[in-house]
Amino acid sequence: MKVGIINVTGYAGIELARILHGHPEADVVSVTGRSAAGREIGDELPHLERLGITIEEEITKSVDIVFSALPQVVSAEACVPFVRAGVKVVDISADFRLHDPQEYLEWYGKEHPAPDLLETSVYGCTELDREGIAGASLVANPGCYANGALLALAPVVDAGLITDQIIVDAKSGVSGAGRGLSMVTHFSEVNENVFAYSVEGHRHLPEITQELRRLRPGYEPRMIFQPHLIPMTRGIHDTVYADFVEGTFDSTEQARERVREVYNDYYADESFVRVVSKPPQSKQTWGNNDCLIYPTVDSRTGRLLVFAVLDNLVKGAAGQAVQNMNLMFGIPETTGLEQIAVYP
Amino acid sequence: MKVGIINVTGYAGIELARILHGHPEADVVSVTGRSAAGREIGDELPHLERLGITIEEEITKSVDIVFSALPQVVSAEACVPFVRAGVKVVDISADFRLHDPQEYLEWYGKEHPAPDLLETSVYGCTELDREGIAGASLVANPGCYANGALLALAPVVDAGLITDQIIVDAKSGVSGAGRGLSMVTHFSEVNENVFAYSVEGHRHLPEITQELRRLRPGYEPRMIFQPHLIPMTRGIHDTVYADFVEGTFDSTEQARERVREVYNDYYADESFVRVVSKPPQSKQTWGNNDCLIYPTVDSRTGRLLVFAVLDNLVKGAAGQAVQNMNLMFGIPETTGLEQIAVYP
Amino acid sequence: MKVGIINVTGYAGIELARILHGHPEADVVSVTGRSAAGREIGDELPHLERLGITIEEEITKSVDIVFSALPQVVSAEACVPFVRAGVKVVDISADFRLHDPQEYLEWYGKEHPAPDLLETSVYGCTELDREGIAGASLVANPGCYANGALLALAPVVDAGLITDQIIVDAKSGVSGAGRGLSMVTHFSEVNENVFAYSVEGHRHLPEITQELRRLRPGYEPRMIFQPHLIPMTRGIHDTVYADFVEGTFDSTEQARERVREVYNDYYADESFVRVVSKPPQSKQTWGNNDCLIYPTVDSRTGRLLVFAVLDNLVKGAAGQAVQNMNLMFGIPETTGLEQIAVYP
Amino acid sequence: MKVGIINVTGYAGIELARILHGHPEADVVSVTGRSAAGREIGDELPHLERLGITIEEEITKSVDIVFSALPQVVSAEACVPFVRAGVKVVDISADFRLHDPQEYLEWYGKEHPAPDLLETSVYGCTELDREGIAGASLVANPGCYANGALLALAPVVDAGLITDQIIVDAKSGVSGAGRGLSMVTHFSEVNENVFAYSVEGHRHLPEITQELRRLRPGYEPRMIFQPHLIPMTRGIHDTVYADFVEGTFDSTEQARERVREVYNDYYADESFVRVVSKPPQSKQTWGNNDCLIYPTVDSRTGRLLVFAVLDNLVKGAAGQAVQNMNLMFGIPETTGLEQIAVYP
Repeated sequence: MKVGIINVTGYAGIELARILHGHPEADVVSVTGRSAAGREIGDELPHLERLGITIEEEITKSVDIVFSALPQVVSAEACVPFVRAGVKVVDISADFRLHDPQEYLEWYGKEHPAPDLLETSVYGCTELDREGIAGASLVANPGCYANGALLALAPVVDAGLITDQIIVDAKSGVSGAGRGLSMVTHFSEVNENVFAYSVEGHRHLPEITQELRRLRPGYEPRMIFQPHLIPMTRGIHDTVYADFVEGTFDSTEQARERVREVYNDYYADESFVRVVSKPPQSKQTWGNNDCLIYPTVDSRTGRLLVFAVLDNLVKGAAGQAVQNMNLMFGIPETTGLEQIAVYP
Repeated sequence: MKVGIINVTGYAGIELARILHGHPEADVVSVTGRSAAGREIGDELPHLERLGITIEEEITKSVDIVFSALPQVVSAEACVPFVRAGVKVVDISADFRLHDPQEYLEWYGKEHPAPDLLETSVYGCTELDREGIAGASLVANPGCYANGALLALAPVVDAGLITDQIIVDAKSGVSGAGRGLSMVTHFSEVNENVFAYSVEGHRHLPEITQELRRLRPGYEPRMIFQPHLIPMTRGIHDTVYADFVEGTFDSTEQARERVREVYNDYYADESFVRVVSKPPQSKQTWGNNDCLIYPTVDSRTGRLLVFAVLDNLVKGAAGQAVQNMNLMFGIPETTGLEQIAVYP
Repeated sequence: MKVGIINVTGYAGIELARILHGHPEADVVSVTGRSAAGREIGDELPHLERLGITIEEEITKSVDIVFSALPQVVSAEACVPFVRAGVKVVDISADFRLHDPQEYLEWYGKEHPAPDLLETSVYGCTELDREGIAGASLVANPGCYANGALLALAPVVDAGLITDQIIVDAKSGVSGAGRGLSMVTHFSEVNENVFAYSVEGHRHLPEITQELRRLRPGYEPRMIFQPHLIPMTRGIHDTVYADFVEGTFDSTEQARERVREVYNDYYADESFVRVVSKPPQSKQTWGNNDCLIYPTVDSRTGRLLVFAVLDNLVKGAAGQAVQNMNLMFGIPETTGLEQIAVYP
Repeated sequence: MKVGIINVTGYAGIELARILHGHPEADVVSVTGRSAAGREIGDELPHLERLGITIEEEITKSVDIVFSALPQVVSAEACVPFVRAGVKVVDISADFRLHDPQEYLEWYGKEHPAPDLLETSVYGCTELDREGIAGASLVANPGCYANGALLALAPVVDAGLITDQIIVDAKSGVSGAGRGLSMVTHFSEVNENVFAYSVEGHRHLPEITQELRRLRPGYEPRMIFQPHLIPMTRGIHDTVYADFVEGTFDSTEQARERVREVYNDYYADESFVRVVSKPPQSKQTWGNNDCLIYPTVDSRTGRLLVFAVLDNLVKGAAGQAVQNMNLMFGIPETTGLEQIAVYP
């Protein structure tokens, strides 16, 4: 596959370049990055020198697939011509995730530039919609927070075990905020610090609820999704709190056993989603495409607890995107993604 | 006041030494630290050289008050003789927090060495029991997690606004795990990492529920208290999720307004608990005795959200202990604790 | 003393506010901060709420002393009117450190706006020029790197023990780069990273050599000063390598002993400079005004090795400035600066 | 190749497992780890679950090569039987690096358990002795500090450009101290801290000088090697200061140009050593096998400055070991090591 990367100089783009460089069937033939256009990639990003490619203003080569790692709104504008021209596209931005243009307007504050594509774009949480993604020409890669929350919730939502009351308390490293400069990416402000943000509602919330509704028609989750910034570069940890539908279980022990069974069954054939036997650590997925999930039931309250971790730049962005590409081109899903986490 | 510190070489002891050194009415006359006994404090802990004191095996001088910064069980054993001798004691360990010896056995796995003292010891969350602490001879300083959770919950529990279903999702820096060596304090294991622990129940849970029950007789909280370790040295961030008693409010706006009012009123006269107008950052309390609280109501679900931060070694340990000492000796509560947070 | 702080919203300004708030004889009556002018300080910087002051465009109150925490060039412009009006000034920027306007032009790329003041301004490394500072109306506070390097070198330069060949390998936390936004203050870029910068010459070099020459007339150091950025917020560690004048010592043992003696004697009466008996750690000065120095002689090569640490925002900036203020007003030098380091 | 890893549970062992898992011609068939013997590797180290192997007491399978990631002394004991049995061995410990048993005794405080093997073991800095390594049956993998220092110095030593006076000021992340528990690996002690250690002489010093002497017979370096610990997990940064032999260059410009030429020529054909055009950052090698080097000449003093970075667990340990294995088995040196650094 000949691959183009739009905006290779952001963190998702850098990570795509890293992963695709090691992908045996992909060849990165063209990369863009506005402010660095015209420079050798190794001059701009020394660790990528091995790619031996020049950063351009626009994708100039013929490509089989384009990844856009631009921010929302500009990403849609950059993707549309490729989609119209029949080139497969995986958009890492938020632009094609919400199928309802009204909801897009509400959360992103702009009219969607190509609302017709919202009908045909496919939400790219691979494990939850393989068929859709395999046949898609435009895949909307999930938000880094959304991916973990969805994978943590899918088995119990699918099984109809929980009520509509869900809390997702998420903790993220700073790279999720991108490579742009702001006080929340300033080392001295963020180091030795933790705080909640987007208390009025984070943009990944509507895509989570949209996909949970798709997963179980008629289910209407009422979710609090509360993100927190913590002083590390990579990694997301989701802690999910939910209530079982009344009368589902006779005892906490039964609930815990059944819940583990449900998760084990749901992810039995997955390569990247692993149900683990104790609370996972984000570091166990540092730099690789795994999502580790530990579901349990609180002894004292009988409520559901699910812990999930992933690397926001891999399973939460570039790795997930490559997994989707593999599926779109009919090659084994794990191709180029078998790396073990870098630990410690 | 002539002060003794038992176990000055742990983090709570080190912090007590720092704070008391700057306290205009306290004089640290004797400090212990088993493994370092016989050494000048500046040889063991260079930054404490100004104290100019020798670390001893036992408190040898006559003192007006003793702080114990030992771990549980051994702390009780060290405190009892002083209590019996009529010396005031603030125990930073967990040994005198739970008033029920059975509960102590259940959570700490040992018979309590002095169960009679559990009846007279006073739980030292200053803001919630000034009268008790002022008259106490033995104060059980709250756990670092417990203090934040209690201060975050007290106003709404006191006002009877919430149901018994409470979730406290806590994030803590590593110094809360003490100065001892273990894999969860190993830099390479903890750096760039986040994970949940004590999923089966953290020892600070029963003291939180005990004190909430004391605050509102008849109230029986069913709480999930879920701690997480994050890669920083100091600081705790609590995120509280709770449900209002049905029918309490007509609208989210009304709820939010009323909740703010309740918190502002409750803490109107406090020096160290400050109700802030946006989500607080743990760094804003780095090294000082503040606890910052931001209560709000989630727009979409109408549930209560409270964010609270403090420095686990100050308001969560040594600062709180000195605040209690001030109260026990009838001097202004803020004496020696007026320092501003060290930022950044 | 009534005090004004120009640019309270930068890190040196924030630290001045913290230290002066605890200073028994200083009263911060006016603070400025251009972008935040008109706001309550607690709205802009929640941890400083206790100051209860409004940020202004200009110093509006009558003051006895002004601290400028502005960047170079603009700082000079802001300071000049106060100097001309007879108000004492401590300038934390680089503007009045170099006495030679030509050298200023060379290193800072601008004509100096008030070259006449370069003759009367006094370089504020307190321990090296108490008389000058006590009588000064304009003190140029040393650069954070310069202060540590000077204190580490002064005793052996003063004693004429070393040749002109000096290497200072410095490691600094990120707060030294200020509160402004740039790639070298971006968390994800700086975390888990170390690199050298200013290889062509760092601006603190000429002030170090200027002061060493002043210390020993005729001495003309040929110094490499090489700074490195390391992933922490506060702290500077200087490692000094120098050669003894040939024939000075008969043996390494003699050299080591004599060197220790020289340092101990030189700093015998100092409150903030402490000669320690093993390599110091920057954390041992976190948040306080100490500079810890460990001089020794390399066993194999007989060369001088000196290790020095300080907190770049305290002894390297705001603390040093307050120490100078105390001296300028004839009060004990340690007033308001007795705090012990916050550890860990 | 069938591969055994002795002590897979230390950091070098974990990293070997990661790299070899992705190596197309290596098959990890047996791993040991005393305290974890009998456990599935995924139970002990969840991120290594994909290896699907049980940790054993001893290497039980027939293997073509054994890597020992044990600490010194015990490593020699574990390696000897394999060497005697004709199995190729790469020892990551220090046990076979120094060819002089007397020197070993002096630096490691123990008689060497197999002094005869010190004559035939080959020091494994691949780029400096390909012929030796290719033909070796026992390779002593270089110390993490030594590798960077040697690669930074080899070109100018080989060219005879510098005097015997060399200073290497090294900064290392904490993982270099291993997975064992101690105060220098305790998060709260190391975070926000920097300090020098091994001031009396670090054990990597004699191997550096031994290899420099081998490189240029007759050359007798008098080196200060001074390591510092900095608060990050992975990465080493070496700053080298040296003096050119008098009369070598007419001007700094000429020196700088010639030095760059010497380095470019020396490493022209290397895959992993890259001479870069500005000061390298350790993060640019995070998780991969590169060593980046930037040589220059100080404008003011005319002295040589070399900056080098590498990942202490890859090029400084496991990656280097695999590179050596490739050479020993006659397969392309880069096999399994082509990964790009994980950034940020």
